[in-house]
Amino acid sequence: MTESDLPVVQLTPGRWGDPAHPVALPSAAVEALKHLGVRRPATAAVDPVDRPGLRPSQQAFLEGVVGVDQVKTDLETRWGHTRGYSTPDLLRHRAGDTSDMPDAVIYPGSHDDVLALLAGCAAHDLAVVPYAGGTSVVGGLAASRRFVTVDLRRLDQLVTIDEVSRTATLQAGVRGPAAEALLAERGYTLGHFPQSYEGASIGGYAAARSSGQSSAGYGRFDQMVVGLTLATPRGTIELGRAPMSAAGPDLRQLVLGSEGAFGIITSVVVRIRPRPTERHFEGWRFEDFAAGLTAIRRLAQDGPLPTVLRLSDEAETAVNLADPDVLGGGSGGVLAIVGFDGPYNALTAEVLTAAGGQNLGEGPGELWRVGRYRAPYLRDPLLDEGALVETLETATFWSRVPALKSAVTEALVKSLSAQGTPPLVLCHVSHVYETGASLYFTVLCAQTDDPVTQWRTAKSAASEAIAAAGGTITHHHGIGTDHRDAYAAEIGPLAAEALQAVKKVLDPDGVMNPGILL
Amino acid sequence: MTESDLPVVQLTPGRWGDPAHPVALPSAAVEALKHLGVRRPATAAVDPVDRPGLRPSQQAFLEGVVGVDQVKTDLETRWGHTRGYSTPDLLRHRAGDTSDMPDAVIYPGSHDDVLALLAGCAAHDLAVVPYAGGTSVVGGLAASRRFVTVDLRRLDQLVTIDEVSRTATLQAGVRGPAAEALLAERGYTLGHFPQSYEGASIGGYAAARSSGQSSAGYGRFDQMVVGLTLATPRGTIELGRAPMSAAGPDLRQLVLGSEGAFGIITSVVVRIRPRPTERHFEGWRFEDFAAGLTAIRRLAQDGPLPTVLRLSDEAETAVNLADPDVLGGGSGGVLAIVGFDGPYNALTAEVLTAAGGQNLGEGPGELWRVGRYRAPYLRDPLLDEGALVETLETATFWSRVPALKSAVTEALVKSLSAQGTPPLVLCHVSHVYETGASLYFTVLCAQTDDPVTQWRTAKSAASEAIAAAGGTITHHHGIGTDHRDAYAAEIGPLAAEALQAVKKVLDPDGVMNPGILL
Repeated sequence: MTESDLPVVQLTPGRWGDPAHPVALPSAAVEALKHLGVRRPATAAVDPVDRPGLRPSQQAFLEGVVGVDQVKTDLETRWGHTRGYSTPDLLRHRAGDTSDMPDAVIYPGSHDDVLALLAGCAAHDLAVVPYAGGTSVVGGLAASRRFVTVDLRRLDQLVTIDEVSRTATLQAGVRGPAAEALLAERGYTLGHFPQSYEGASIGGYAAARSSGQSSAGYGRFDQMVVGLTLATPRGTIELGRAPMSAAGPDLRQLVLGSEGAFGIITSVVVRIRPRPTERHFEGWRFEDFAAGLTAIRRLAQDGPLPTVLRLSDEAETAVNLADPDVLGGGSGGVLAIVGFDGPYNALTAEVLTAAGGQNLGEGPGELWRVGRYRAPYLRDPLLDEGALVETLETATFWSRVPALKSAVTEALVKSLSAQGTPPLVLCHVSHVYETGASLYFTVLCAQTDDPVTQWRTAKSAASEAIAAAGGTITHHHGIGTDHRDAYAAEIGPLAAEALQAVKKVLDPDGVMNPGILL
Repeated sequence: MTESDLPVVQLTPGRWGDPAHPVALPSAAVEALKHLGVRRPATAAVDPVDRPGLRPSQQAFLEGVVGVDQVKTDLETRWGHTRGYSTPDLLRHRAGDTSDMPDAVIYPGSHDDVLALLAGCAAHDLAVVPYAGGTSVVGGLAASRRFVTVDLRRLDQLVTIDEVSRTATLQAGVRGPAAEALLAERGYTLGHFPQSYEGASIGGYAAARSSGQSSAGYGRFDQMVVGLTLATPRGTIELGRAPMSAAGPDLRQLVLGSEGAFGIITSVVVRIRPRPTERHFEGWRFEDFAAGLTAIRRLAQDGPLPTVLRLSDEAETAVNLADPDVLGGGSGGVLAIVGFDGPYNALTAEVLTAAGGQNLGEGPGELWRVGRYRAPYLRDPLLDEGALVETLETATFWSRVPALKSAVTEALVKSLSAQGTPPLVLCHVSHVYETGASLYFTVLCAQTDDPVTQWRTAKSAASEAIAAAGGTITHHHGIGTDHRDAYAAEIGPLAAEALQAVKKVLDPDGVMNPGILL
């Protein structure tokens, strides 16, 4: 099974993943929850109650642009497009909370459709939320006023492949597995495999600066993009005549990460690579996180880098690998995953061995590889059991990584313990650069009676710790609404004002994703 | 001799390079000029005549900020800061043309000095041109109204090195060789070696998106920058908490390439690498440019990439290597330079051999390496002889490279032939990416009686050809004033308006580099 064989998953509203593949909690996990004081919540899921939607004149405008059958106002469709997949999103969904539900879902069939929609929205008092895969975990689909959702799934084409330049033009609505399948037919891969891969789309990758699990080898999505087309309420912007240029600021990097606030990215030109014909995933054991960190830093700085490089801390290693045999029979230590798309590179192994690593062979590597998209599936049964489980992530320069990790862990433990729900905090590094790395935290504890507020409190404490330790508020999840205030503080008032000015030019009436990013 | 041993050159106003190292034209070159109909111009150089400068209130403000001795209004200093080093700049300098001369040259000693200067300029009716190395070749120092020049040479410190993260904080006024010398003391290198290396500075590299001759191995300057500090008339912007982030657009990439139009970059945090302890530069011969292009594309796409990768076309090979022995005794063919900072990589040689390359050994490689900063020195004696010589550059995706090269060459030949001065047009590729490459053209012909107009006409034709063939107007020289119109056309009116809006926020009174970039 390779990434291009995976089907596109029709996400179940309110629950992650393919309903055909439900995930039951391992019995060991159920046992562990008891120690955290987790109890099944008394309340059952609440069905959403509809509320008035579009005005007739608005509906007529939308139908005039895309056709009657491409404007959906039924409750099921709208409820299925409500929010993304953060834990608070799932909790609100279970509570039947329709406050962020769109008034309609529109399915444009072309760039020109999108352009016409955006051009007319202001006159019809419509705000727009773009929807590619719908997998935001940062409140990226919850606008601050009533809105319609523009679902890009009909923009699902591989437009062109340039085999000499090794570029492909992909429309924004192409889902992760579909992109790989389309490219595989021609012998290529994009190499972008975020954990949301089964559901996320090209346009979302671009708009939110996604980074995939193979980022050590293939780079981040923003590094793959060499051109893009943006539809704004005022017209089209097309960027990218060359891989790199000295023609002013790199405006592609102004659009990437703009999260729909300036317009809708309708297609991107991405770098592609030949599909690998072999692959090798290994587990490596290090004495502790510090030793593992030094080892992966060596690879990041002096090479040779594998395609996948990932290091779990002691807590994550212990939880994810209850079987001590996986860690070479030793007790304790931390697990690193080292994966190669293509031939095995023995030099990488030499560096890791010299840094004190113990090669655990392909067993743990393959275990991780085949399960790599399964973690989000565990969240729903955990929520069912009354656990609160959520993730957050950051990045910084290497010298600050240890202090950042401690500060965030401490903030989470302190905040949740104070709320009577001491947590388990797991951490891993999954993206490395010459000058720094990302940190990804998973938090597990018992729910209080108000888990949304419970998490908001803990998340605020973590965000403050990130800022104080010099980290960025997000390495690959994006800003959405959840990180908006922290983002404004991170870039400062002058830069924020500059971004607002860009928005004012491209979206003078503020119809694009109001309240998201800015 | 390595880059860190090279001295910082005090550029001679109006002539490139260190006056202690004058370059005489090889006699073969003088002979070649005869074939192009080049004749010594009758006119001698004209001395500049001073014109009224600052008003007393302006001078008092500037002296109040930086001190009396850091404000220079003498003719020599101001004339020495007039324009950069394009051929039209040199020609205007020879004509004693003071139209772009600053009214004063200011030497701030700190970021806060710069901030105070910029904050007060509007009230004192002063426009500002930032000056780092002063090596612009695109009119980047010629504002559209009277101005003072802010020379950053006192900001010459290596502020910090973070050896764990492998980053260094360098002030904007650190010149190329000084940066290498400072880093070499600690065992590191930046690896940025543009042809202007002897004179250019960190701030200019950043503001104009410089790319160096070792870009295959070390990347472009904009890829080295992980953090920066920008002083604007409205305050400071500091960016870069992590190597990469999903926190909105990458605003570092909005400041890089902004060419002083938003403010002055006072320091950058750059990625550094251990100094190589060995190096190997080789020449390789290919049958023709097309064969060489395929070979270097293979390295760019599938690796392994050397540190320096450069391919001359037939014309450049013939002119630069009059001695056929260098090309392995064969006649014709094209020369590639393949350089390694660090150990020799035999795999690179295997790829080149498989692609039809013939290894010429270290002779031509070393010849190129030791002479790599000398080409600009040849221009002044060529101008003295009555030749017109200038360069221009572009980049595009691989599949478009051959057509772009033909179109630009044809446009130059046609335009200059129509003016009665048929040119020699040489070309090389000096920067490669997975998806494309740069093209660098050198043009040599006889001067007409009005060489500034002569070149402007030819340059316009080349720029139109670049746009029509889908190239970017500049790969690493920047926009300045020379490329402003082509740039506006390249990004389109909506993106240009967005940039103007950013400028309006950061520089509401338009005091920063008026007429440059935007």
